[in-house]
Amino acid sequence: MLPEPLRWTGEGLSLLDQRRLPFVVEHRLCRTVEQVAWSIENMVVRGAPAIGVAAAYAMALAAREGMPLETAAKRLASTRPTAVNLFWALKRMEIVASRCRGNLFGPLLAEAEAIHDEDIACNRSLGRCGQALLPRESTVITHCNAGALATSGYGTALGVLRAAVEAGKTVTVFADETRPRLQGSRLTAWELRQDGFDVTVITDGMSGPLMRTRPVDAVLVGADRIAANGDVANKIGTYNLAVVAVRHGVPFYVAAPLSTVDASLERGESIPIEERDGNEIRSIDGTALIPADFPVWNPAFDVTPAELVTAIITEAGVLYPPYGPALRDALKKAGLPEKGA
Amino acid sequence: MLPEPLRWTGEGLSLLDQRRLPFVVEHRLCRTVEQVAWSIENMVVRGAPAIGVAAAYAMALAAREGMPLETAAKRLASTRPTAVNLFWALKRMEIVASRCRGNLFGPLLAEAEAIHDEDIACNRSLGRCGQALLPRESTVITHCNAGALATSGYGTALGVLRAAVEAGKTVTVFADETRPRLQGSRLTAWELRQDGFDVTVITDGMSGPLMRTRPVDAVLVGADRIAANGDVANKIGTYNLAVVAVRHGVPFYVAAPLSTVDASLERGESIPIEERDGNEIRSIDGTALIPADFPVWNPAFDVTPAELVTAIITEAGVLYPPYGPALRDALKKAGLPEKGA
Repeated sequence: MLPEPLRWTGEGLSLLDQRRLPFVVEHRLCRTVEQVAWSIENMVVRGAPAIGVAAAYAMALAAREGMPLETAAKRLASTRPTAVNLFWALKRMEIVASRCRGNLFGPLLAEAEAIHDEDIACNRSLGRCGQALLPRESTVITHCNAGALATSGYGTALGVLRAAVEAGKTVTVFADETRPRLQGSRLTAWELRQDGFDVTVITDGMSGPLMRTRPVDAVLVGADRIAANGDVANKIGTYNLAVVAVRHGVPFYVAAPLSTVDASLERGESIPIEERDGNEIRSIDGTALIPADFPVWNPAFDVTPAELVTAIITEAGVLYPPYGPALRDALKKAGLPEKGA
Repeated sequence: MLPEPLRWTGEGLSLLDQRRLPFVVEHRLCRTVEQVAWSIENMVVRGAPAIGVAAAYAMALAAREGMPLETAAKRLASTRPTAVNLFWALKRMEIVASRCRGNLFGPLLAEAEAIHDEDIACNRSLGRCGQALLPRESTVITHCNAGALATSGYGTALGVLRAAVEAGKTVTVFADETRPRLQGSRLTAWELRQDGFDVTVITDGMSGPLMRTRPVDAVLVGADRIAANGDVANKIGTYNLAVVAVRHGVPFYVAAPLSTVDASLERGESIPIEERDGNEIRSIDGTALIPADFPVWNPAFDVTPAELVTAIITEAGVLYPPYGPALRDALKKAGLPEKGA
């Protein structure tokens, strides 16, 4: 059973509250732009593709509540800086708005629904392309949640695993718990268990020892933004995992739709990295792990250099190094901007 | 102010309860072997050198309560399999017992006190040797707690930092929180803050991004057992940190007394790795992070191969590769067994 992280209900955008998973399955109905923006900031909805879709629906809500679209776009763009899908979706909505006269709500809702549908189709296509990389019996390590919950409902990295199973393969998954927010142990383990996967949670420091102890066929992660040269911004902890995978000769695959590519940035160093509230490290669900006055550093993402990435799995096929020309070519064929606007 | 993890009170062995730090500073008085064994198993007292000292005092308690020493040693040896200092201390106590006639309590207590005093002296000597490796202004990453709390009261890895400060150097510390038990964020951050250090907590996945972001002069960790070839068993997460340090050209130093060397084991693969209860990953302080039925893997230690270790800092000086002859030589000079008994 695939969880559905977001759904347009007619009344508004219903979000599966991912802060309460896996203990409570609860939906929050957003009727306003502000409610969607707050939900993105507070990670009710998270995952680069899902954030993009949520922001698209929020633009339709803006038209309905009579908020100037520019104000809405500004508010939504201010929520989280790293995932580029957010800005990509807002741009698509602005283009539609600029072409319309009269009531904008209908066309904007239709565009949001198109982005939503395209994301699912894109995930399925990406999954089919990527699953060919996995052997018939695979052991895979994943980090954070690049699953149904992070997208419109199938997943990027986890979509590849789903497609492998649909192709008759056996997949054993080890999920990095992914501190500080535990998206791996809470979201990935939950959604894969719902789907009948054999999944074991490990702490982020156990990936290397696992590779020393048993054969691992692949590391498979998502991405929040990919620079033109193939450098990948993804959830904090991804870089260490990539370094360890390379040492062990384990392929390190990044699964992401082409909308995650930011062709305007040459290299990963230019990707803005969100720093979140230190209390994410100091406490969990309001329970203190350490005192409030202990200093912490809490970047939400890190950058893995292209040289560590074995392949980038997209809906348009599997891309190999050198990523510069490979990404440029894929974007061109898909009709997406090869150089940022 | 240096915390004192254990103290003989006359009545028994008083242990600082490390499970409750940094929120509650509370001592537990152990009057029996069983109480000490339970305290080691449940990590009231932890850290390879401190476990050795606690076990030594427990042997004196055995003599006082009239428990056969063999039974006591067997019980204590069953508590935790990885830290070799435990077995080393038990062996020293058995040698003393085998040489005595009549009441054993006095001589055994004297030997435990000697082990205790030697550990402090050894830490200070190790600190002096190791601090020379650090530049005048140092930024250091450490993992788990190899501090006063893990020893008799000065520390191995953190002893090196203390000695650097005593030598007039400035040390900035980043402490891996060290999942699942949080010895880094709870114990290391606490004891270094007590001592006036500038210490920042990071999650275990942030060490690499930190090295990409700012200059790091050294990674400094302790050890639970070192094989004859220099392979190092230490807290889970150490291996990933070492791999990342080597990629960044950051020296990876292991600080440990020679009693941590197990010359009977040729290579790290032979070091027994304790697997602990999966609930250490599933919950913290009784609060569930994930449901009780999610499968987890929870090895408490990992092995870092000697080739990743820049130097091993001991009380007898700083050892460099090849570690086989360097360790053999140091053990010989110290009068310790060069081949396991």
